[in-house]
Amino acid sequence: MTKSKNLLDLDDADKTFIEALIARARQYKQGVPNENIRLRGRVVLGMFFETSTRTTTSFAVAAQRLGAAYIDFRTDGSSLAKGESLEDTMRTVRAIGADALVVRHSEAGFPHALARYFDGVVLNAGDGAHAHPTQGLLDAMTLIEEFGDLKGRRLVICGDIRHSRVARSSARAAWLLGAAVVLCGPPSLLPPVVPAWGFADLATELDPLLPATDALMLLRVQKERAQADELPPYEELARFYGLTRQRVDLLPPHAIIMHPGPVNRDVEVEGELMHHARSRIERQVENGVYVRMAVLERTLGSLSRDRVA
Amino acid sequence: MTKSKNLLDLDDADKTFIEALIARARQYKQGVPNENIRLRGRVVLGMFFETSTRTTTSFAVAAQRLGAAYIDFRTDGSSLAKGESLEDTMRTVRAIGADALVVRHSEAGFPHALARYFDGVVLNAGDGAHAHPTQGLLDAMTLIEEFGDLKGRRLVICGDIRHSRVARSSARAAWLLGAAVVLCGPPSLLPPVVPAWGFADLATELDPLLPATDALMLLRVQKERAQADELPPYEELARFYGLTRQRVDLLPPHAIIMHPGPVNRDVEVEGELMHHARSRIERQVENGVYVRMAVLERTLGSLSRDRVA
Amino acid sequence: MTKSKNLLDLDDADKTFIEALIARARQYKQGVPNENIRLRGRVVLGMFFETSTRTTTSFAVAAQRLGAAYIDFRTDGSSLAKGESLEDTMRTVRAIGADALVVRHSEAGFPHALARYFDGVVLNAGDGAHAHPTQGLLDAMTLIEEFGDLKGRRLVICGDIRHSRVARSSARAAWLLGAAVVLCGPPSLLPPVVPAWGFADLATELDPLLPATDALMLLRVQKERAQADELPPYEELARFYGLTRQRVDLLPPHAIIMHPGPVNRDVEVEGELMHHARSRIERQVENGVYVRMAVLERTLGSLSRDRVA
Repeated sequence: MTKSKNLLDLDDADKTFIEALIARARQYKQGVPNENIRLRGRVVLGMFFETSTRTTTSFAVAAQRLGAAYIDFRTDGSSLAKGESLEDTMRTVRAIGADALVVRHSEAGFPHALARYFDGVVLNAGDGAHAHPTQGLLDAMTLIEEFGDLKGRRLVICGDIRHSRVARSSARAAWLLGAAVVLCGPPSLLPPVVPAWGFADLATELDPLLPATDALMLLRVQKERAQADELPPYEELARFYGLTRQRVDLLPPHAIIMHPGPVNRDVEVEGELMHHARSRIERQVENGVYVRMAVLERTLGSLSRDRVA
Repeated sequence: MTKSKNLLDLDDADKTFIEALIARARQYKQGVPNENIRLRGRVVLGMFFETSTRTTTSFAVAAQRLGAAYIDFRTDGSSLAKGESLEDTMRTVRAIGADALVVRHSEAGFPHALARYFDGVVLNAGDGAHAHPTQGLLDAMTLIEEFGDLKGRRLVICGDIRHSRVARSSARAAWLLGAAVVLCGPPSLLPPVVPAWGFADLATELDPLLPATDALMLLRVQKERAQADELPPYEELARFYGLTRQRVDLLPPHAIIMHPGPVNRDVEVEGELMHHARSRIERQVENGVYVRMAVLERTLGSLSRDRVA
Repeated sequence: MTKSKNLLDLDDADKTFIEALIARARQYKQGVPNENIRLRGRVVLGMFFETSTRTTTSFAVAAQRLGAAYIDFRTDGSSLAKGESLEDTMRTVRAIGADALVVRHSEAGFPHALARYFDGVVLNAGDGAHAHPTQGLLDAMTLIEEFGDLKGRRLVICGDIRHSRVARSSARAAWLLGAAVVLCGPPSLLPPVVPAWGFADLATELDPLLPATDALMLLRVQKERAQADELPPYEELARFYGLTRQRVDLLPPHAIIMHPGPVNRDVEVEGELMHHARSRIERQVENGVYVRMAVLERTLGSLSRDRVA
């Protein structure tokens, strides 16, 4: 990870890498002099094959704050749609001058495929149920802001784990920083093996976990990626795994509530709890911009300014 | 109005407020030193739920001339479409770093709803048949440029008044600056009470008004907002309320012709009159950019640079 | 051409004009001091009625590198779609502050129609089967980089000539710089008269041409512009006119391979040859940005900074 110029997932990331990015993101949050010229002349191309609001806007804001141009690459009616091969499209966008691609796609591994052909920086903004590394980093930043050190802390991620790219990336980042991670949900929505991903415990009941939880992250049900028979009815999900006032009272007083958004109110979270004093949901979004600034600076900074020959 | 950081309508605006914005817009038209860094680092998000050409482009140009980033928020496939509540979306876009939202929506009052939740600046770029305040300001600017003082001047607004957000905002702005306003159209397209909106006279015949008209503003028939039985046939509208060469000859020599555009040629205005020497239709569009610069500067200038905590 | 502020086609271009633009593009490729403020404050509006990836992105990158704002004009749901006349839309976008329009449209002559009404710069980014002048210039730049002088060189353009706007523009540019041009393809896809366009030879067999070819440009079959009975089957096109390893071996050792992209792999070009040492396909794309910078600078530089009155 640390040696790659891309950010495709957090599989090869280590503690040092994540800590360095978070430290830089926190500096940006404080304000970094001349941030607006740091990536001047750089071109960041957003390629969102799945629609997105917060992630595309967050990357656009991050790029523009650093002085880079952010250009939306229309995925409909693109050369790809005209039958051009992925390799040819990647070589083309590089030749046009794109320094970084920010890619979201419904297929796991798509950004990795792009990276084989694109001679610039590829940043994964979510690929299928696989990974969403900047989300993992912004969640880790939010935890570090709260707790300083994650050693001995317990993160519980609750809901549709199986179809969630967020779960995988956020769990790994928190674990690399020292947290214990428990994944909680109905059996059909949990990974099949324990420990999951080599480090996470599994649980099917939420309530017993709550008194020893430092951070509770609720996940959105991913209707678009689940098969019909995998999903329990919404009422059941809300009843057993949704955040209610009673469940908040079971948490320790210092515990925080997280959600990557967008929230299905009254499914994962009771509406009135969205902006509860313990909620860090907006903080996560806010931190997302700073994390993406840090990622853009680091990855593009490692890229030569010479154009393709 | 003057105390709000938003610009949602002109209902609470006063003469001082409007004059100050127009004065600033006129300075921008002359050229203001370092205009391109005045809003550096600011992020303006365009949220157009109804398509638009001139208004969205005009705001984009205005924002970019002042050094702000203008980002198009894709309303299709957005978090809102995924079922996120308005409140949550608003808190999210603020957390991402949006300082101002420029909103157009088919529903009257939609921008006001956003403003309840968005902790930045909300600028109404048209909501249903309710208001279009920057259009009102640019029309007022065009009148002031022409006549200096509007006291004793008469503005006639003609056509589909009932479904027009422009009529309401432009009439109010002109009236606040001292003009008399007459709304003219077929009974089914006029407001039901006199004086309309507390200040405007009504008329169903255009020709008798013309000799005492200083500015004649034609309005577009709003097919998309009218019910089938409310609209007279186009030929009838053109015959009784459309601008023809004969009607131009009934106007005093100093009178000007306005239209918020886009024009249905040969319905509201005979094609050959579009670029008549008395037409100020392009001038209105041009002034729109300067008015929006003034509005962005004023509203964003009143906003703290601190991010949400 | 040299006297017009627009770039609509290369019909009236001369050698001096083309050479000057290429020389400037080559300077940009080397790096020009303060390039990022040269068009500061200028507004370039992209109007793509046909979708495009490389051309729209290339113009966006070119404009932004020079400090101009590039704004995507949404052609769907625009004022034009609401029935506004072309003249009125053009006057409107000029009044909004657009200095240049970059236009692509399926109809030949559409940019010329815009230019009648738009009081700024109109740049044709492809109109039907008519012209694509910046493609012609970037191809000429690629040839000049390779050969220095085109006198005595032979460019063979092969494939669907009849429906290609690229063929016409690239052939003319190369011919104006001194090259001999041969157009090769099945009879149904060739122009009906010899010499085509006043200067180009025609051929229906590719193989005999190859030993005396300096640059071989393959063209994409334009399914979207061809009638059903005009197009031979793909296999036949590939067999007689596609680039294969055997055909590469018939070329002289110094010959180069070009294609405007996107490529139908294994129709016009065998997949493995795309990135052959003699291929200049990516170089063409790369040069496109520099050529467009030169064109924007030249055309906008000739435009007064005064706004419409």
